[in-house]
Amino acid sequence: MKTIYLDNNATTAVAPEVREAILPYLGDLYFNPSSMYQQAVQVAGALNQAQEDIAEFLGGVFPDEILFTSGATESNNTALYGSVRANPARRHIVTSAVEHPAILEVVKDLERTGCEVSVVPVDENGNLDMREFVGALRPDTLLVSIMHANNESGVIFPINELARIVKETSPEILFHSDATQSVGKVPINLRSEYADVDLLSFSGHKLHAPKGIGALYVKRGTALRPYLVGGHQQQGRRAGTENAAFIVGLAKACKLAAQCHAQEEPRITAMRDKLERELTTRIPFVHVSGKGAPRLGNTLNISFHYIEGEGILYQLNEHGICASSGSACTSGSLDPSHVLKAMGVPFTALHGSVRFSLSRYTSEDEIDEIIKVLPEIVQKLRRLSPYWDQAKQQPRPGAPRGEVFDDRAKHPV
Amino acid sequence: MKTIYLDNNATTAVAPEVREAILPYLGDLYFNPSSMYQQAVQVAGALNQAQEDIAEFLGGVFPDEILFTSGATESNNTALYGSVRANPARRHIVTSAVEHPAILEVVKDLERTGCEVSVVPVDENGNLDMREFVGALRPDTLLVSIMHANNESGVIFPINELARIVKETSPEILFHSDATQSVGKVPINLRSEYADVDLLSFSGHKLHAPKGIGALYVKRGTALRPYLVGGHQQQGRRAGTENAAFIVGLAKACKLAAQCHAQEEPRITAMRDKLERELTTRIPFVHVSGKGAPRLGNTLNISFHYIEGEGILYQLNEHGICASSGSACTSGSLDPSHVLKAMGVPFTALHGSVRFSLSRYTSEDEIDEIIKVLPEIVQKLRRLSPYWDQAKQQPRPGAPRGEVFDDRAKHPV
Repeated sequence: MKTIYLDNNATTAVAPEVREAILPYLGDLYFNPSSMYQQAVQVAGALNQAQEDIAEFLGGVFPDEILFTSGATESNNTALYGSVRANPARRHIVTSAVEHPAILEVVKDLERTGCEVSVVPVDENGNLDMREFVGALRPDTLLVSIMHANNESGVIFPINELARIVKETSPEILFHSDATQSVGKVPINLRSEYADVDLLSFSGHKLHAPKGIGALYVKRGTALRPYLVGGHQQQGRRAGTENAAFIVGLAKACKLAAQCHAQEEPRITAMRDKLERELTTRIPFVHVSGKGAPRLGNTLNISFHYIEGEGILYQLNEHGICASSGSACTSGSLDPSHVLKAMGVPFTALHGSVRFSLSRYTSEDEIDEIIKVLPEIVQKLRRLSPYWDQAKQQPRPGAPRGEVFDDRAKHPV
Repeated sequence: MKTIYLDNNATTAVAPEVREAILPYLGDLYFNPSSMYQQAVQVAGALNQAQEDIAEFLGGVFPDEILFTSGATESNNTALYGSVRANPARRHIVTSAVEHPAILEVVKDLERTGCEVSVVPVDENGNLDMREFVGALRPDTLLVSIMHANNESGVIFPINELARIVKETSPEILFHSDATQSVGKVPINLRSEYADVDLLSFSGHKLHAPKGIGALYVKRGTALRPYLVGGHQQQGRRAGTENAAFIVGLAKACKLAAQCHAQEEPRITAMRDKLERELTTRIPFVHVSGKGAPRLGNTLNISFHYIEGEGILYQLNEHGICASSGSACTSGSLDPSHVLKAMGVPFTALHGSVRFSLSRYTSEDEIDEIIKVLPEIVQKLRRLSPYWDQAKQQPRPGAPRGEVFDDRAKHPV
């Protein structure tokens, strides 16, 4: 059975061109870039070129502003712990309620060790509460860390504007963004529109490079302590022999993303819009999270009232369709998504969410296949759901929140 | 010109079998192992299998005692910072003078933040000073971190015995070893001979897996805080989407190392011994570091009095020969090796050290080529060296230390 892969916010297929770029470094070009002979210097040159390519991709920043890491989690840990350690005098951090665990768990940990954290809420569209955001900034604020695009809802925060507000409030405050979901999908120019951003994290495997490589943009002059300590690699800012193969792959993936963007983004967005339109037309009682906000063109987070997302995923997988319920990074947990909860998604829909995330390898045939099979799946699951029976007694699309929640509370699964 | 690669302690060629094992995960098996569909479960299964294979390779430990990291630097950072954070009551650390920077720089950093550190010296053969070691243990000692084999000299520390002493002194003290240079070269059974070791770091790229993957053995029950914080991956002990491709490659590399060991280790050691014998016979005024200690069979650290190692490397590279002077991890620095200094290598030899490190891909022809070209290179460089001229005035092989040092001090380069 053919796989229909619509879970590109979890990870992406490695682009064939990226794989080709990687292979020589798993072959004859295995040398340690820190060594002194010409063969090693060639590898070091490839790493410099990768840095230049990524610097160019992000708007022509300085190549030495690009630090390579093992992925966005390490980039985020480096940005947060690294700036706290470099700036012991200020201990206040501002973040949002819908960040990835690689931010939220780090700020929780920092809170335990003496930082104060302000968590800015979002509205029901997923937009950041701007009033709360501005109100959260304090004279002792060290760092603001606000993601660019949300992995679950696809909602895009205006980090260019947020960073500008932060710098206007105080140029001392650092602005970090976890841009893992946006890099490759949203053009980011760190020399013009996004010039007020100091630190920006991303990961290769969300843009068709492999898992295990990421980067952190660190604006020159930003006080940041290394997080991996040891050898002199990367000008002493991140110890550990560089993953030369995947660094070259990451640079290639960035170049491809830039090349494909103008043609692919509208095509991807059109497919997502079609999927959303058809599903919301064909299936009653659905909720699209983030619909009222600027969103990534590739993401559809749709909830089906009264049934469980995981049941839907299981049925979809029987048709070869890969999608996700909540984030892959928090799967294994039965708690509903903290992102959808923060957006106030009604309880009856909270457990019934499915995220479809497209890529440039997604075809319209695949979208059509989902449009064909999903209404039947939802109908079938609802026939089996006790909540659906109850809901039929009160079949009001605009039923006040809490109405079915109460029923459910009486009959826990 | 054919490359003769004798810098395997810096990094190794990726084994063709490892590359083959990796490729599917850069192709069709790109799924996120945390996802819930069958394709992703297949990748998760491969990671479990890799854990089992490495657990088996290390003597049949529990698979969940193997944590995957981005390399030995991350493993070392995790072991040291992670155990300090998990055990705030005890703040004393014991380590050796010849550790890799990924240990020494971390303990320096821990010292700045309130830990006390005892650094155990080595003798002129590179052996650990056992009396100082035992004397360094204290009631408040949290952690002992002693490397297994030294990256520069190849000297092997008896970590089985050291760990036994530590546990006999107090079972509370954690024993960590950076085994980056020994894993794959020295059989390590963590259930019998090495059972007192609690934490063991290693890296894929020293045993024919790629750069960018490593592991940390964490004995069950060891109190250790995660170092990369975020998602639930690896049972919440190391956040970040797993580098599935390289994890599979690391497991394959470990299996290959085990398979090749009985046949290859004697062959490698014989070639190294031949190289050492022929070079010391053909070239006067040489010093072999670690000669009087148990040593890795693949490593020859040889110093040529009165000339610079880097000059030798440059000349060797003209013949396609890759070797190293000091560790690749500290290259870019003009300071002489901290390892050779700790061993009391005479000053006239300290700057003239070259490390040859062999692998199972090394052939006897390659060794013969070095034996052929190196004496000429040394002779040529010595003719150009002002120190050689001076030394000729006092051509006593057993000249007291400091004699030529004084000359040199008067005529700094």
